[in-house]
Amino acid sequence: MELLTTNNVWMMICTALVFFMHLGFSLLEIGLTRQKNTINILFKNIFIITIGLLLYCFVGFNLMYPGEFNGFLGFAGFGLDSPLTAEGALDLTYNQGYTYWTDFLFQGMFAATAATIVSGAVAERVKIVPFMIFTVLYVGLVYPIAGSWKWGGGFLDQMGFYDFAGSTLVHSVGGWAAVVAVCLLGPRIGKFKNGKAQAIPGHNIPLATAGVLILWLGWFGFNGGSVLSADPGLTSLTLVTTCLAAAAGGVVAMLVSTVMYKNLDLTMFLNGILGGLVGITAGADVVSPTSAIIIGAVAGTLIVLAVSFIDNKLKLDDPVGAIAVHLVCGIWGTLAVGIFSTNPEHSFLTQLIGVACYAVFCLATSFIIIFTLKKTMGIRVPEKEELEGLDAHEHGMDAYPDFRLNEH
Amino acid sequence: MELLTTNNVWMMICTALVFFMHLGFSLLEIGLTRQKNTINILFKNIFIITIGLLLYCFVGFNLMYPGEFNGFLGFAGFGLDSPLTAEGALDLTYNQGYTYWTDFLFQGMFAATAATIVSGAVAERVKIVPFMIFTVLYVGLVYPIAGSWKWGGGFLDQMGFYDFAGSTLVHSVGGWAAVVAVCLLGPRIGKFKNGKAQAIPGHNIPLATAGVLILWLGWFGFNGGSVLSADPGLTSLTLVTTCLAAAAGGVVAMLVSTVMYKNLDLTMFLNGILGGLVGITAGADVVSPTSAIIIGAVAGTLIVLAVSFIDNKLKLDDPVGAIAVHLVCGIWGTLAVGIFSTNPEHSFLTQLIGVACYAVFCLATSFIIIFTLKKTMGIRVPEKEELEGLDAHEHGMDAYPDFRLNEH
Amino acid sequence: MELLTTNNVWMMICTALVFFMHLGFSLLEIGLTRQKNTINILFKNIFIITIGLLLYCFVGFNLMYPGEFNGFLGFAGFGLDSPLTAEGALDLTYNQGYTYWTDFLFQGMFAATAATIVSGAVAERVKIVPFMIFTVLYVGLVYPIAGSWKWGGGFLDQMGFYDFAGSTLVHSVGGWAAVVAVCLLGPRIGKFKNGKAQAIPGHNIPLATAGVLILWLGWFGFNGGSVLSADPGLTSLTLVTTCLAAAAGGVVAMLVSTVMYKNLDLTMFLNGILGGLVGITAGADVVSPTSAIIIGAVAGTLIVLAVSFIDNKLKLDDPVGAIAVHLVCGIWGTLAVGIFSTNPEHSFLTQLIGVACYAVFCLATSFIIIFTLKKTMGIRVPEKEELEGLDAHEHGMDAYPDFRLNEH
Repeated sequence: MELLTTNNVWMMICTALVFFMHLGFSLLEIGLTRQKNTINILFKNIFIITIGLLLYCFVGFNLMYPGEFNGFLGFAGFGLDSPLTAEGALDLTYNQGYTYWTDFLFQGMFAATAATIVSGAVAERVKIVPFMIFTVLYVGLVYPIAGSWKWGGGFLDQMGFYDFAGSTLVHSVGGWAAVVAVCLLGPRIGKFKNGKAQAIPGHNIPLATAGVLILWLGWFGFNGGSVLSADPGLTSLTLVTTCLAAAAGGVVAMLVSTVMYKNLDLTMFLNGILGGLVGITAGADVVSPTSAIIIGAVAGTLIVLAVSFIDNKLKLDDPVGAIAVHLVCGIWGTLAVGIFSTNPEHSFLTQLIGVACYAVFCLATSFIIIFTLKKTMGIRVPEKEELEGLDAHEHGMDAYPDFRLNEH
Repeated sequence: MELLTTNNVWMMICTALVFFMHLGFSLLEIGLTRQKNTINILFKNIFIITIGLLLYCFVGFNLMYPGEFNGFLGFAGFGLDSPLTAEGALDLTYNQGYTYWTDFLFQGMFAATAATIVSGAVAERVKIVPFMIFTVLYVGLVYPIAGSWKWGGGFLDQMGFYDFAGSTLVHSVGGWAAVVAVCLLGPRIGKFKNGKAQAIPGHNIPLATAGVLILWLGWFGFNGGSVLSADPGLTSLTLVTTCLAAAAGGVVAMLVSTVMYKNLDLTMFLNGILGGLVGITAGADVVSPTSAIIIGAVAGTLIVLAVSFIDNKLKLDDPVGAIAVHLVCGIWGTLAVGIFSTNPEHSFLTQLIGVACYAVFCLATSFIIIFTLKKTMGIRVPEKEELEGLDAHEHGMDAYPDFRLNEH
Repeated sequence: MELLTTNNVWMMICTALVFFMHLGFSLLEIGLTRQKNTINILFKNIFIITIGLLLYCFVGFNLMYPGEFNGFLGFAGFGLDSPLTAEGALDLTYNQGYTYWTDFLFQGMFAATAATIVSGAVAERVKIVPFMIFTVLYVGLVYPIAGSWKWGGGFLDQMGFYDFAGSTLVHSVGGWAAVVAVCLLGPRIGKFKNGKAQAIPGHNIPLATAGVLILWLGWFGFNGGSVLSADPGLTSLTLVTTCLAAAAGGVVAMLVSTVMYKNLDLTMFLNGILGGLVGITAGADVVSPTSAIIIGAVAGTLIVLAVSFIDNKLKLDDPVGAIAVHLVCGIWGTLAVGIFSTNPEHSFLTQLIGVACYAVFCLATSFIIIFTLKKTMGIRVPEKEELEGLDAHEHGMDAYPDFRLNEH
């Protein structure tokens, strides 16, 4: 009982921290984009966290943790009260780690994250209603089904695939959809001139920086809570590997970008931190601190290279670097488990298979959803609206009405 | 001992989260008002939290938890050390849940909130010194006496009135005073033209949004800590109902306002979240998740209707919607306990009586205080000061001196 | 085991809160300076937290907690894995309070703080590369050696010197280096005209205010975690004394500055809160709540006097008041232990000796480092760069590209 209470306290705190990441994502995304689309981005993010929780209550939780199932798709019923008898509304026997309610809320906070990642990649030009429909389908159905394959005890779990806190299950699931969305949506007006990528500076770097530090804080809960108990050794090791990978990712991205561009680039520093965090997420509890620094350092290098590659070679317009951070580093982190894990049962090949399964499923489902939306209602705002800003057209509001602004 | 330690850890974390709500309130309030009054609003909020804690230490805590008393008014002495012998400075026998010190600090963080609610309603035109005097009296005397009636074991507690975390004891106590203050103060210049309410846009919507998410985070502690122990079932149920009501409140307010105004209004979305949070606060530990969603959805609807009603029918100028959020949804949440509670002893009638008692007491006391201030020193800044901004006149500071600003 | 788990949970949460202080420091520092140097300040702060953690892992932790040593200098090896056998990677026998990993991370979060304090004092004119070199040496070597004298069980610990959470070990260690840096660097262009100090207003007071409230929140962990266990009496007493000192510091600084300057100065209010927090840090667990209020009130008075003295008499240019807050109140708090401690073994004279030892060591080491940097690579940016802003010259970025700005 005492231990259950302590475990449950830890898990609730981690839940609160993961919730707080939604503020981090929001501030990062508005900070790295232009002021004329700020309201729109905040609206999307607030929609994601609210509808995400309701959907996870209504259907997602029971899709993701279906109990006995075939390993690919299962469902345990609608709503939250179903597994509980009337008397058992405060059932404490759910497991040794935490209560049923805590489990739901912790997992529910994760669910919305996948759509948030996409939100950053499609910012400043996506029509909001189709994005909201995408969010409902992706958070409500795709994410929990994908999650059930590993965390719900499905076929990838049985194969030995390992993803501690979601380098693949959360970050890549979002990242693959971001790739599809960016391809189908096309770049922002002015992003590419004569085939060359142009910088479109973010309008509020202090808020973007605050967003990254809030995300780092949230990762204490994201990874720390994924231990699913307050086990002192595992939770504290996890926090150490998480923070060291973040630090290494940031410092290395800063150094690499300074060498490449002869410039002390704060945005790369920040994205390096995020890359380190995403990279360590798959194996935070099974690698040593030294390995964590290496994983973070590689992630920091990958970030700088991937941002440049996506911009200049692939010519994809990802305003906040979501694909580099969440997809590239998510894949790296998942594979890194196969290299650095102290558990000999983890294999590089199995990790690769897992990555591939999620790639296929997420690319396919997000393509079906977004392509259908594109062909039916359209997914891109009119040119005039994009130039004048989504805030005025879709929301009738300014983010900063008392300030004088530059036009661009 | 182990359980005491765990309970105490939980309560201390909740205390920290409730403290953090003061940042949420501050950002929300400045975000929804004009930049020229930003310093003034921050000053008020910083004053409330600092003086609030000192007053609660000096007198409030012992007024609110007076031990044996007549049920209406009691007092246990000045200062914090009084109930402890010199040897007992670290008395651990206070109760099974947490220490005396934790109890003081958790409750002290609540105390300041009532005045913060008023602060939003009177923003942009109230004289600061009378507001500070009001804060001292309302936080130091009115709030703890009102609180003692239920949480101190007073007559409403004995009658069976239920208010888990303060839909009435905190939010309505602030909300009633807000009504009185707004009536006595009058609307801001320019709010009503030819009898029609005009929108006065807030100057920094990103900070307002951050404020709402910080408040939601803080509500994990506000409601979660009101369990007064780390009981796994109750705390985690409370967090689930709290978050689901917030989500439902936001989504429904967004939908209703979209239908009514054909506009995706971020401010209504945010206020809907807050309305859901205030609404669930009275019964977060005694309702099911499904009921929580209903309570939140009703609160979200009420917010949209109440904001319009207060603006257009009552013609009251409440710049941040404090009355709609804290009073209307506070009343709704308190009554909802009588409808949705799983505890058959909770009755709608008793809840209604409780609401009425607080209405009478808070309207009367806040009227006496504010009316006296109005007749003696005046409560409203001169017209010139209001037009030019309170920051320049009362504080000699600009909030954003490096930015070019629009006049209005 | 249960108690270890609970203690460890508390320490991990406190670690997260101390980490979050770096956002508080960042926002405070940019808020109180000009927008043209915002990117530069954020870059410095992000560098400090990332490199600080890596250095503490590589060398600092083992310098600061060297095990058996001569009391002045010791070293326990490089990296984090050294004291653990391969099997013991999750060693739980480290002590009764928390794990080895938690210990590292909690202490590591403290380490970076000393350099952050200096960062504020040298803002808007320091060259970034020499500052980064200073950070590496001060965080990597000076701070842990200084820390070992007390927290590592060195000679000051054996003498009976007491510094609970670092009024001296953290805040004064940063503060002394700030004095040296400010003297060697000289004032910003325009700070003194005809020998009179000029106000250079900070560009974003809402962010500065948010920074202070985030720092206050972080202090729950900074002081609360310094108990090094979740002991209910000590942790909760510590939070009460911490919050009361903060509140008293703020209110008294506000009153004193209002009397002195006939102006309700928000910045002084905020600095008073920070002064109260720094002041209580040395003795938060050994003084009564009443003493905490006195300590905070004295700190609040000192802040107002010290800011004026440093500006007008010493003619030192400390843009954010770091010397007044961290050094003056750090010394006061350390001496206050000798006056107010409930432990009769604490003596004023020993506290004074401790303060003097840190003064000599920190002044000497920071002078050697900064003077060498000044004579070799230079520590001050060219005049043109200072006038136009460090952001454009060192980082090629604007913090707020969409906003129209005033030149100054």
